[in-house]
Amino acid sequence: MLRVPFDHLDAALRQAMLRLGLPEDRATRCARLFAETTRDGIYTHGLNRFPRFSAMVKNGSIDVHATLTLTAGFGAIERWNGNRGIGNLNAQDATTRAIELARKNGMGAVALANTNHWMRGGAFGWQAADQGLFAICWSNTLANLPAWGATTPALGNNPLVLAIPRSEGNLVLDMAMSQFSYGTLASYSKRGVPLPVPGGYDKQGHLTQDAAAIEASQRALPIGYWKGSGLALVLDAIAAMLSGGMATHQFPQDPLQEVGQSQIFLVIDPSNLAAAAELNHIADGIIDSLRQATPIDPAKPIRYPGEQTLQLREENMRLGVPVDPDIWNQISSIEPTSA
Amino acid sequence: MLRVPFDHLDAALRQAMLRLGLPEDRATRCARLFAETTRDGIYTHGLNRFPRFSAMVKNGSIDVHATLTLTAGFGAIERWNGNRGIGNLNAQDATTRAIELARKNGMGAVALANTNHWMRGGAFGWQAADQGLFAICWSNTLANLPAWGATTPALGNNPLVLAIPRSEGNLVLDMAMSQFSYGTLASYSKRGVPLPVPGGYDKQGHLTQDAAAIEASQRALPIGYWKGSGLALVLDAIAAMLSGGMATHQFPQDPLQEVGQSQIFLVIDPSNLAAAAELNHIADGIIDSLRQATPIDPAKPIRYPGEQTLQLREENMRLGVPVDPDIWNQISSIEPTSA
Repeated sequence: MLRVPFDHLDAALRQAMLRLGLPEDRATRCARLFAETTRDGIYTHGLNRFPRFSAMVKNGSIDVHATLTLTAGFGAIERWNGNRGIGNLNAQDATTRAIELARKNGMGAVALANTNHWMRGGAFGWQAADQGLFAICWSNTLANLPAWGATTPALGNNPLVLAIPRSEGNLVLDMAMSQFSYGTLASYSKRGVPLPVPGGYDKQGHLTQDAAAIEASQRALPIGYWKGSGLALVLDAIAAMLSGGMATHQFPQDPLQEVGQSQIFLVIDPSNLAAAAELNHIADGIIDSLRQATPIDPAKPIRYPGEQTLQLREENMRLGVPVDPDIWNQISSIEPTSA
Repeated sequence: MLRVPFDHLDAALRQAMLRLGLPEDRATRCARLFAETTRDGIYTHGLNRFPRFSAMVKNGSIDVHATLTLTAGFGAIERWNGNRGIGNLNAQDATTRAIELARKNGMGAVALANTNHWMRGGAFGWQAADQGLFAICWSNTLANLPAWGATTPALGNNPLVLAIPRSEGNLVLDMAMSQFSYGTLASYSKRGVPLPVPGGYDKQGHLTQDAAAIEASQRALPIGYWKGSGLALVLDAIAAMLSGGMATHQFPQDPLQEVGQSQIFLVIDPSNLAAAAELNHIADGIIDSLRQATPIDPAKPIRYPGEQTLQLREENMRLGVPVDPDIWNQISSIEPTSA
């Protein structure tokens, strides 16, 4: 593993984005989001995701010039079309607009159709929470999970983000509806290590901790079995209905053709309801009580969602951001496009 | 099991509510909510819950005369105080207010502090969806789940409701953050039947399907292990912070003293974004695709959240609502209070 300074990573990504044909201001913003995701320890959705992002720009799935257009709106809620633009920029712009709506109306929402993979959903939770706002965001995806009672995938793993502002460190939960991603399953099966908890069914229909058996059956588990199955379904329905965009069942199964996601960005501005000091006091009380619980392993303190992110951010800024040397090399060898 | 006509159940509950000291209009509404919950097959939170409700009126935990009071508001979001009134009426009133805010602003939210157990959270999802609106609601509870990595309970099972309007039948998900409630665990351990999936840890720290072992350890599982643990925590934090009310760690452990819950009622009115026909078309497409998945057991069709509710409702209206004979007798023997 190689560690590189954050600024170096950011600059290299920016150059790679420019070579991919992104206009200068968009290259800067997009690179920053990829670099920050890596810095925050979400390695699967930062630099390591760049090769797939690049492939989807090159195959035409992502239009690097497209920006959001308003299609309908009423009061605190608006429908926007992402025009198959760059997913993380579309999501950042949608969050910015939801924040404007929330500042004006107490709360605001953007339902975004026809966008692209937002990479790290948590980024948009942090964006709102860093400004003292609450956020609830989610995206649908292609079908990659069987519904409860089924053997074939009909549900997306539809990542859900909930963000809470707190001066000592925001609480940001960023979770997919699958117990384990297929990336995580692959990493366990490659190492031949059992999953820490059951992650799906084998081909015989038995619940298993054997990642390879789940890869073979393609029957990964939603969180909480029937509960996560229901939650994935309703998140898809709300996103598709409010945005007027695609639902999970309409995506092709090829991840490189997974375009047109529907997403929700809902922001709440608490500043007219309560002083920041009151809000912090409540949040601090919750975290204090969490820390007073008896840990299973005294060496492993109980953490709130987002706490590890802050620790990794600090560590990676201090020591350099860990990068995969192969992908790091790929970045510096991207061919210029004709765009 | 006894079956009684819905109107009979409703009338008997109304008489019981009057004998408990509820004013006439509140007795009518409260009885109706209990009766509808039983009719819809949520037996744990309908008639069977009446004895506990009655005990909490008698011990002063529930003030049958209290109504909501506005404490702060800005645009589409308001903070209300439930004044420790009747939980299901408070929640119904909060939903009614959130609907008003949504009709005016596209979306609306009520953050409700200092209320009481809402009984069946799904009722408020149905209330909004029956009017063509989306709803997201949740409540915190006393601590009844260990956080991920802990052995002692610091999290509530914080039920979450998501409701989607659809002319052929609303989609309504009503789920707690625990994989199984303690009521469900008790029912399995009484029958000596293993849980269908792991539901917690035994005292030795092993994941188990033995309900009695989980009752002994008090280490029930959140859905999705670390994921539901994080979700329960952030739902508690958002409810307590936005309402200014109590958080899970502030409740006494005695269920009969579990008063002062914080709740969120968030409603979205899609009518200015899209025609109902467009919305129904999207929802129907999602449900059609769900039904095309291959079922594990061909005799068990794959259902969407809320589908079973509609089936049970129809069946119970036709055949009579199933009631527990003991509780049915208790209802007719409630002593009048001095109220």
